[in-house]
Amino acid sequence: MTDTTCDAFLGGRLTLEQPARGYRAGLDPVLLAAAVKARAGETVLELGCGAGAALLCLGTRVPGLVLHGVEVQPAYAELCRRNAARNGMQATIWDGDLRALPPALSNMTFHHVLANPPYFEAGRGKASALHDRDLALRGDTTTANWIETATRRLRPKGWLTLIHKADRLHDVLRAMDDRLGAISVYPITGRAGRPADRVLVRAHKGARGPFRLHPPVHLHDGPQHRSDQPDYRPEIGAILRDGASFPLPD
Amino acid sequence: MTDTTCDAFLGGRLTLEQPARGYRAGLDPVLLAAAVKARAGETVLELGCGAGAALLCLGTRVPGLVLHGVEVQPAYAELCRRNAARNGMQATIWDGDLRALPPALSNMTFHHVLANPPYFEAGRGKASALHDRDLALRGDTTTANWIETATRRLRPKGWLTLIHKADRLHDVLRAMDDRLGAISVYPITGRAGRPADRVLVRAHKGARGPFRLHPPVHLHDGPQHRSDQPDYRPEIGAILRDGASFPLPD
Repeated sequence: MTDTTCDAFLGGRLTLEQPARGYRAGLDPVLLAAAVKARAGETVLELGCGAGAALLCLGTRVPGLVLHGVEVQPAYAELCRRNAARNGMQATIWDGDLRALPPALSNMTFHHVLANPPYFEAGRGKASALHDRDLALRGDTTTANWIETATRRLRPKGWLTLIHKADRLHDVLRAMDDRLGAISVYPITGRAGRPADRVLVRAHKGARGPFRLHPPVHLHDGPQHRSDQPDYRPEIGAILRDGASFPLPD
Repeated sequence: MTDTTCDAFLGGRLTLEQPARGYRAGLDPVLLAAAVKARAGETVLELGCGAGAALLCLGTRVPGLVLHGVEVQPAYAELCRRNAARNGMQATIWDGDLRALPPALSNMTFHHVLANPPYFEAGRGKASALHDRDLALRGDTTTANWIETATRRLRPKGWLTLIHKADRLHDVLRAMDDRLGAISVYPITGRAGRPADRVLVRAHKGARGPFRLHPPVHLHDGPQHRSDQPDYRPEIGAILRDGASFPLPD
């Protein structure tokens, strides 16, 4: 992976080297990281951490976390290690397939597991010409693989936080069994009145709280885009520019 | 069941005899019936039809349907037959447990199956002092029993329409397997910005369309109740008072 760019995240608090082509982080890993309820001293694992956008946004917002990531594509894992170092963060990045984690990682459990799984279903859709981008976008894993590995790696009372395409919510919820409780779904829409585009999902291992379907979070105010400037709602702007946490109700 | 009342639905278009105590129909079966996309000449089965609120609201709105209901409690099944006759409708009401339908009904399939399953989980929560009300509210069936029976009784390309408590959406979606597609979830909230209280769910047997999480439907305008009058939003008022259909996007 020789052709990369360096991009600023969180108002310049974080700089990530990313492939110029292939999978490049957008809004979603930033929102995901902002939704993880982690506190200093806790342990965190990101499944499929890529070049580290979500994991390192989280590490930037909450100093003092113990950060781990696992990534199946060695070139991305290596970028992630460089990105952690570039930003002065300690992070342990494992090379590995989430369906068969390295044995040492399989013996660990975490306060938080986060993931931004491939948005398209394994074996469906058109393959990208770029194999690495294709793996990140479409994957050869199922949603059930991601949820199963995440569930196993959580400590009792640990939190799983996911972001996914809204049309995959059925797959996500089907894959969550009785080991997970207090599941909260936060639909994310561009503007009020539109169908959900993304969903943030949080679940609490071993908890008994009820399932909750929360009101949609709108990224933008008003019915349509009105200028050439980004018009994110203030709390979304605060996440993207100031590294704020996502003010989500429990 | 000797102590009953007669209550007007749909602005007086439908009169239902209901037990004075025990399970009494409220808003939910009326919304459910308004969400079924049935057309004259099609066949309809309601699982757990009780005294007939949803089935007969649907029959009132769409004349010319072939109406069937199945009800495990004989006294409610009998009330439902009387209610159909009282309102001049033909409806075949079967006595039976949805986990083991009468054989003749098991040989039939329908264009539409609708249900308003018990809101509390089998074996959880506090039993009602009134056994029949308890069965209607809490049931001894699981959500999976309801979805399985509904799925089997649908024709190819038939539609399943459910209303349920929003905190049971996880159970509903977990129970829907690949025989159902094009699943649409419509959260129902009292007012904008509140978590969903109910969900309407539609699914299409044998279809391949994507899962969709739609914007919430608000029953009321404004942040709070402002008078002693009902303040339903116009489209909800039209359903309740004029027998209109629910204007839900696909």
